[in-house]
Amino acid sequence: MAAHPAARNLDDDAALLDGWVITHDTIAEGVHYLPDDPADTVGWKLAAVNASDLAGKGAKPEAALLSLAMRGDGAWEAAFLDGLEQALGEFGMTLIGGDTIALPDGSPRVLGMTALGRAGASTPSRSGGKAGDTLWLAGTVGNAAAGLHQLKADPSASGTLVDAYRKPRPLIEAGALLASNAHAMMDISDGLLIDASRLAKASGLKAEIHLSALPLSEAFREARGNGLDARLLAATGGDDYALLVSGGEDVLGISLPAGTRLVAIGRLVEGGGLSLSHDGAEVPAPERLGYEHRA
Amino acid sequence: MAAHPAARNLDDDAALLDGWVITHDTIAEGVHYLPDDPADTVGWKLAAVNASDLAGKGAKPEAALLSLAMRGDGAWEAAFLDGLEQALGEFGMTLIGGDTIALPDGSPRVLGMTALGRAGASTPSRSGGKAGDTLWLAGTVGNAAAGLHQLKADPSASGTLVDAYRKPRPLIEAGALLASNAHAMMDISDGLLIDASRLAKASGLKAEIHLSALPLSEAFREARGNGLDARLLAATGGDDYALLVSGGEDVLGISLPAGTRLVAIGRLVEGGGLSLSHDGAEVPAPERLGYEHRA
Repeated sequence: MAAHPAARNLDDDAALLDGWVITHDTIAEGVHYLPDDPADTVGWKLAAVNASDLAGKGAKPEAALLSLAMRGDGAWEAAFLDGLEQALGEFGMTLIGGDTIALPDGSPRVLGMTALGRAGASTPSRSGGKAGDTLWLAGTVGNAAAGLHQLKADPSASGTLVDAYRKPRPLIEAGALLASNAHAMMDISDGLLIDASRLAKASGLKAEIHLSALPLSEAFREARGNGLDARLLAATGGDDYALLVSGGEDVLGISLPAGTRLVAIGRLVEGGGLSLSHDGAEVPAPERLGYEHRA
Repeated sequence: MAAHPAARNLDDDAALLDGWVITHDTIAEGVHYLPDDPADTVGWKLAAVNASDLAGKGAKPEAALLSLAMRGDGAWEAAFLDGLEQALGEFGMTLIGGDTIALPDGSPRVLGMTALGRAGASTPSRSGGKAGDTLWLAGTVGNAAAGLHQLKADPSASGTLVDAYRKPRPLIEAGALLASNAHAMMDISDGLLIDASRLAKASGLKAEIHLSALPLSEAFREARGNGLDARLLAATGGDDYALLVSGGEDVLGISLPAGTRLVAIGRLVEGGGLSLSHDGAEVPAPERLGYEHRA
């Protein structure tokens, strides 16, 4: 259906139109967040998932339109909007429009946002990766997945990992800096393995991922350990909002904001699909590479 | 929350950003369309409601992003996308992105679109109406409301009125032509009376509407008659996709596409609220002026 050059063959997270990067992500109750998640963190998350898509294209978040299918619970909505407003402020975005509708009682809330960001000098797509590129990861993976495990075991859990699940922080500054040297780039929100596969496929190449190289936080290691199982959880759990960059060694020369790690986790090579290694030995890919938006 | 000048204080149907008019409308199953409506007409309607918002600002529809919360019925989705594609083609729009998610079984579908149109030389807001302006209506009102009545009485009903409900045709060309002379303009999708009240309120004025002057189609008159009750249905039923224009007599000089009626239906005067007349006599405003997006 899409013939517009802005669409990039719908092969990307975002469209590029007249110097604007435009993206839309929707989250639904019970699918992308837990019904018990505090409403303000749901508002935060809706802004964060969309700002992260912009960060993945090196764009500067600026404006947002909302699509809120609600259920007539005023207190929930007020808290949701509080969290949303906080996040928009932190990410440099302002609300310019949208639509709010009321669903019948019992329907899951469906919360969407269209986010617009100013494109930087370069807007890397998913498809620009080259054979021989290093795959770089900015940020860490696994925190949110470990936090979700904690919440499922104990709905009152809290701490670094739960915060990572509920109030993710998109790497906006890092994305803008990395974009200039990236051949291809995207944010990791569905799981590193599935998103790396998508980048490799769009680039017509194969992704090799070294699980031993994955950057894990101290909190993650404390909760889940450091072995292969823990690393597979981190590589497939999703909700990370880290950035995956395909590029040469010059990526390493970019000075990132304090606290943002950048490590090499693999490379792109001729071929297709995905291969994994751990401690130098090949590892079969797990059946589930991450979160699929559709069955 | 909205401080961005593009937002127009969220007082409008659409934002204006860098020469783009941007709008988002969401429709939900059982709220904005009937669960039994053919899937292709639901796709058409989603594109039409958004293109109509652009028409109401005199913009030329160009691009769209989708937000589809579906339920895993492939045949329904394929037909939906067929109807959507048909409408996008007819309205001159191409799909540039979006998000599709799967809802749990039994959840109502929630279907959103962000539409982008090129602004014309003038982008009339809701708030530009002046005291003494004539209120002009381009198109007719009531067909869709009469069609919905027919469908509720007989789900297999068909004809002009049912078509008006299921496959509305936004007045894109007329909107672009009218925008240049309009002081204020908007599309009538929630009902003439409620939308006229909104335009008057945004302009800080009172709307006087002459029900006797409402343009009714032949099919509407055949089905519902021509009396006060029929005219109140037409004025409050919604889903009309007609255009309401506030402006001077020069609006009448605009040459509209063949078949598009333009009639004077009232005026803006000092004060607030709404007053109605029929055959020269004042008529009390009905309790329900149209469709409210929220309770």
